[in-house]
Amino acid sequence: MDEAIDEAVKNSNCSSLDIDMIVVANMLGEKTNNQSHLGSLASNILPHKPPAIRIESACASGSIAFHTACALLESGRVKTILVVGVEKMTDLPAEEIAQGLMGAADAEKDMPSGLTFPGIFGLIASKYMYDYGLKREDLNLVSSTHHKNAVKNPYAQFRNNISPERISQSPIVSSPLHMLDCSPISDGAAACILSTKIKSNITIAASQISTDTLSISERDTITSFSATKDAMRKALKEANISRNDISHLEIHDCFSIAALINLEDLGYVSPGKGIEMYKSKKSSPTINKSGGLKACGHPVAATGIKQIIDSTKQLKSSGKKYALAQNFGGACASCAIHILKNSK
Amino acid sequence: MDEAIDEAVKNSNCSSLDIDMIVVANMLGEKTNNQSHLGSLASNILPHKPPAIRIESACASGSIAFHTACALLESGRVKTILVVGVEKMTDLPAEEIAQGLMGAADAEKDMPSGLTFPGIFGLIASKYMYDYGLKREDLNLVSSTHHKNAVKNPYAQFRNNISPERISQSPIVSSPLHMLDCSPISDGAAACILSTKIKSNITIAASQISTDTLSISERDTITSFSATKDAMRKALKEANISRNDISHLEIHDCFSIAALINLEDLGYVSPGKGIEMYKSKKSSPTINKSGGLKACGHPVAATGIKQIIDSTKQLKSSGKKYALAQNFGGACASCAIHILKNSK
Repeated sequence: MDEAIDEAVKNSNCSSLDIDMIVVANMLGEKTNNQSHLGSLASNILPHKPPAIRIESACASGSIAFHTACALLESGRVKTILVVGVEKMTDLPAEEIAQGLMGAADAEKDMPSGLTFPGIFGLIASKYMYDYGLKREDLNLVSSTHHKNAVKNPYAQFRNNISPERISQSPIVSSPLHMLDCSPISDGAAACILSTKIKSNITIAASQISTDTLSISERDTITSFSATKDAMRKALKEANISRNDISHLEIHDCFSIAALINLEDLGYVSPGKGIEMYKSKKSSPTINKSGGLKACGHPVAATGIKQIIDSTKQLKSSGKKYALAQNFGGACASCAIHILKNSK
Repeated sequence: MDEAIDEAVKNSNCSSLDIDMIVVANMLGEKTNNQSHLGSLASNILPHKPPAIRIESACASGSIAFHTACALLESGRVKTILVVGVEKMTDLPAEEIAQGLMGAADAEKDMPSGLTFPGIFGLIASKYMYDYGLKREDLNLVSSTHHKNAVKNPYAQFRNNISPERISQSPIVSSPLHMLDCSPISDGAAACILSTKIKSNITIAASQISTDTLSISERDTITSFSATKDAMRKALKEANISRNDISHLEIHDCFSIAALINLEDLGYVSPGKGIEMYKSKKSSPTINKSGGLKACGHPVAATGIKQIIDSTKQLKSSGKKYALAQNFGGACASCAIHILKNSK
């Protein structure tokens, strides 16, 4: 968190003393470090200890903290705000982290069955393959593409190319999902500074959030996520653009199958056709050019902020006008969509 | 949470469908129920599943959620917002809850020493008694007064009178603090609805938050809390009133000694003189007429919202103009102050 805040301040046009408030995103601090109260913890990093709050919305904590920061700026109460997401996941055994992550599902309805998140997304992948005839070798394209993209990203946890075949050769975690279909357990932090006072070429064209039932047992379907659809509809309306105006997508690929569902729910392809976007040679919109959660790592509450930072980097590098970041929590029981605009 | 939301809707001038968004306050869900993602959990209670976020700021979670809700309303993104605080603390053994609550302090700097919160406030009480000569029998007045106030409060956890002598006859928890100096472990929820659309005689004249170092080891003093002073200064400025315009105080008496420090930090008496307000027969401002944390119970994230609800009840009953709620987290590493105004 220290390092990310330091780098955010250095890369901004402001000094740390300009920061009026901090929004911290964290999911697992209580479990992993017996540390709550991360607002104050982050505030202590800055010399003037500005007011700080902590937001949690499972794996969407980062983007929902970002959304809250937007509202705080719009309220006029603050002019410059630091948003920082942080997660420390490697201090505990994997089974304890898996149990902690199940807090993103419904503790009464989902947990007693023995489900874990790989289990939930294994069910989702099974149903998706049954409904749409997706082939296992095609699904391999998702993680292998994200790994390829990450090779050039110095901040990615894994910067190695992985051939499509190796994905389905890796150990099975929850059939039909293999280890290399799953985003890893990661430590990480991401920070950025939003301001209504300091000028930037990158502005926030839309910030929208939506929720769904916590338990997948209460959904009409598990191969599509209504929170993504709802947030996308509201985001396009807020930005007053069409989805085809967007050049870069950072989507929430906690598991390979989620990437396909997300592209469908965002409206880029019809249900069952997500894989076509990985097969096609079309260059726009780009998908998870950063490497996504699979290759960048998934320190859960940092992810949503990292996606937005990567989106702005892509806009600065390509000179294109719009980029979108989609981040969800649990099995998309909460979702945030941000559209970034490049005015240069 | 169900019951509190239901009662909030029934007592409001709106239907549940008017609620545009939910802010949930919770501290210990991960520890006590392996349940994160309480935004979605709360959203599922309403038929239209509005967007929801969860805020955590230790024992100040409730009031800091309330502050965030104010900013969300001011942003214009939403017109009617439900704020609900919830804590389920009695399912775990007391030592596990005590460890979870230590997450409100600094896990690296405070925990290794073996400190608990009764330990921290025991240190604070010792230093306060040494500095100001507060007598143990005088300190008894704090909890006994709060218990007396709670007798008429149907929502209080303890509605029994306790004589001052019995406080210091109860078992020692952390010298000089006895069991009846300490707020209890409680289950509870509190909910209220804020709106810019629906008229009410009660409005929010000020909503301010402030932070301090998480660890008391890094403070200049432990017998005064700078976050309270800072939030109070900003709150009086925002409300544009003097502290003497305020008729009712709900202050954060997690431990009896805290009540005295709070009255001093709020500026009603000089340092060391807090007890005078319990000794005097002055009727204004009233102090913890609800019974406070000691007698109402302290389901941590619900407390800050409960204080605000009680403040509005007091205004409605007395017909007075201003009431103040002060809620803090940890050893006042975060503090929120709300001033409520009665326009009737």
